[in-house]
Amino acid sequence: MTATPSREDCAARDRRDPLARFRDAFVLPDGVIYLDGNSLGALPASAAARIHEAVTRDWGQGLIRSWNAAGWIDLPAKLGAKIAPLIGAAPDEVIVADSTSVNLFKLLVAALRLRPERRVILMEARDFPTNLYIGQGVAALMGDGYTCRIVPGEEIDAALDKSVAVLALTHVNFKTGAVHDMARLTQHAHEVGALTIWDLCHTVGAMPVDLTGARADFALGCTYKYLNGGPGAPAFVYVPKHMQATFHQPLTGWMGHADPFSFVDDYAPAAGIKRALSGTPGVLSMVALDAALDVWADVDLGVLRNKSVALGDLFIALVEARCAGHGFALASPRDGTRRGSQVSFQHAQGYAIMQALIARGVIGDFRAPDIVRFGFAPLYTRYVDVWQAAEVLFDIMETRAWDTPQFKARAAVT
Amino acid sequence: MTATPSREDCAARDRRDPLARFRDAFVLPDGVIYLDGNSLGALPASAAARIHEAVTRDWGQGLIRSWNAAGWIDLPAKLGAKIAPLIGAAPDEVIVADSTSVNLFKLLVAALRLRPERRVILMEARDFPTNLYIGQGVAALMGDGYTCRIVPGEEIDAALDKSVAVLALTHVNFKTGAVHDMARLTQHAHEVGALTIWDLCHTVGAMPVDLTGARADFALGCTYKYLNGGPGAPAFVYVPKHMQATFHQPLTGWMGHADPFSFVDDYAPAAGIKRALSGTPGVLSMVALDAALDVWADVDLGVLRNKSVALGDLFIALVEARCAGHGFALASPRDGTRRGSQVSFQHAQGYAIMQALIARGVIGDFRAPDIVRFGFAPLYTRYVDVWQAAEVLFDIMETRAWDTPQFKARAAVT
Repeated sequence: MTATPSREDCAARDRRDPLARFRDAFVLPDGVIYLDGNSLGALPASAAARIHEAVTRDWGQGLIRSWNAAGWIDLPAKLGAKIAPLIGAAPDEVIVADSTSVNLFKLLVAALRLRPERRVILMEARDFPTNLYIGQGVAALMGDGYTCRIVPGEEIDAALDKSVAVLALTHVNFKTGAVHDMARLTQHAHEVGALTIWDLCHTVGAMPVDLTGARADFALGCTYKYLNGGPGAPAFVYVPKHMQATFHQPLTGWMGHADPFSFVDDYAPAAGIKRALSGTPGVLSMVALDAALDVWADVDLGVLRNKSVALGDLFIALVEARCAGHGFALASPRDGTRRGSQVSFQHAQGYAIMQALIARGVIGDFRAPDIVRFGFAPLYTRYVDVWQAAEVLFDIMETRAWDTPQFKARAAVT
Repeated sequence: MTATPSREDCAARDRRDPLARFRDAFVLPDGVIYLDGNSLGALPASAAARIHEAVTRDWGQGLIRSWNAAGWIDLPAKLGAKIAPLIGAAPDEVIVADSTSVNLFKLLVAALRLRPERRVILMEARDFPTNLYIGQGVAALMGDGYTCRIVPGEEIDAALDKSVAVLALTHVNFKTGAVHDMARLTQHAHEVGALTIWDLCHTVGAMPVDLTGARADFALGCTYKYLNGGPGAPAFVYVPKHMQATFHQPLTGWMGHADPFSFVDDYAPAAGIKRALSGTPGVLSMVALDAALDVWADVDLGVLRNKSVALGDLFIALVEARCAGHGFALASPRDGTRRGSQVSFQHAQGYAIMQALIARGVIGDFRAPDIVRFGFAPLYTRYVDVWQAAEVLFDIMETRAWDTPQFKARAAVT
């Protein structure tokens, strides 16, 4: 049996890490090992000043003039173009707007309209809940025999039949980090005449993805996880150029109009990706995202992915070596190529253990009913952080530090 | 004929103005008379520090913990409760989320579900375009004979028949400032069995409104005009308590779930107003709005309304006296009780005239095809500002300062 890496081994890996310099692009609190960038990414160092400038100069002094002068009106398309290279899309195929939930609604309805003779939305059980809820909501709204068919991951292929209008999947599962084979499933969907929607919430900024190469029909994702856009930052929508002319989403607000400032009474969709827009964009949240996306301009996603897999492999090795016998069962794929940038373990006392970790400055999260989840954001997570987190977990298990009423009492929100 | 007020008369009114002290609650640029708070409200003086704190302390240092520790998760309900007293609602009848466009979509679908045997959405021609577009989008989505019937304002009563499921009107028209009689139209709608949705975008923060007294079924509005929530600040939704149990909106995202952090696969709506939520809230935009709403805690809306009417009356009197013969036609109700907090004039050269005004530091806006629009935000607009704006307008007309190629060339966005 190989010895597990030492802290010094990890520090040496950090010194060789080609991404190490990006850590300075983020503000990170002292005394914290932050392994929850897959829930809320860290604050980009440039963001506070950018937001302050937008507030005091553009809003305070520019006032209404800033819609043009400060480029607010262009932010949805500008930010979309910055996200595009991270997901294998062209700049005019991505736009930023609304939330993941709202955008999934748009895409599902648009997809159903392209397959009017079909009645099934196919989704995966234990996908992120809002996806399933929106799928159910769309089916209920459409009525007329529409259903949201939710099946376990291993039954997706079998469920892909000619009744399926659209297969809507999250590429990387939020709980386990398991990665779907986007190209293969898209091809299978196309073989039976179904469209695909790919949710990239746990993908974008965690690994390269090639929507164009996979021939994905639609995609979307949030920007507040690995992209570090800030709490509740707006989401993005991908509609490839060849689908844009026939893309008709139902939230036909004025920002998606062909000529929004003509103030005419009848809706006519904008020509390209802008037809995915609805209402007035949330400027302050978009400014934060704008700063966050600038960090990505010179990130090599292949290098990022290699580090991500290495961090996850290291954590699994350390936890399984140090915490053997403490009841952890790996809930993520062991094979790094099939795993997103997170590692999850099942543990009956997962909630209390995570509270104890957080109290010790190791921040991951808990996902009901029994998953402790650790995310690795390769731009700012170091190998020594992973090593230290495993050490703290070991100590908590050895000392049963989790076994207190304070840590075992579930908060309403986690 | 009474002489029009002098600058000194106006300064004297400002000295007597009980709202004068609120001007210090806002940042306003030097050399500018800002008469566009009905499009984007001014920056509250407290907002920049609050946002900076949210960014650097809550996001930067608190990270994911701030969803609980900084109360981010409670912002939609907390902000709704702050808006409630401004619109005659109870605190748990209002919630902040998404955009006006998205919220109107939710309300329209929810209303149609409550009148399943009816097929007509009734709206007003030349309402704000996004409202009409969303109405058209909902009708198209529902199919099955649903239509969005759009009639001129004077034909609304005649069009209210038993085919109408929901009457959706903007209380104060964005172009003219004309105010609908909410109580009367709601009663008429109810008499024919229709529901009502009131858009309060140009109402809230401009005048008192009593949704409860008017028995309005639903309402919504934006927060970036008279409420000063910031560019693209999120919108609010009103669902009265007696309607909440049967309120079923289609954008069934996780934040509207009865137990969002249980991560179960099936949607179940939250018990109260929270079921109007969809996706993850945009925290930074909500923090700005939170600061903006604090200003309203001790504003007397009756006093506000009186000043609003007086400012509008003054502007009409001054422009009609000083600019007589220059081709302006009042496009707003002359009767202040039937007018929102804005005054609009039609003028064939309206676009160029507004550009010339803006170049001289008097910021109103232009609304195609021929409306120049001046908004009066009583918390920070002074009587002397109104006087000065009319003087500058007079000078521009007398000198034909608007008649340059630069001002006549229409920008793509205004």
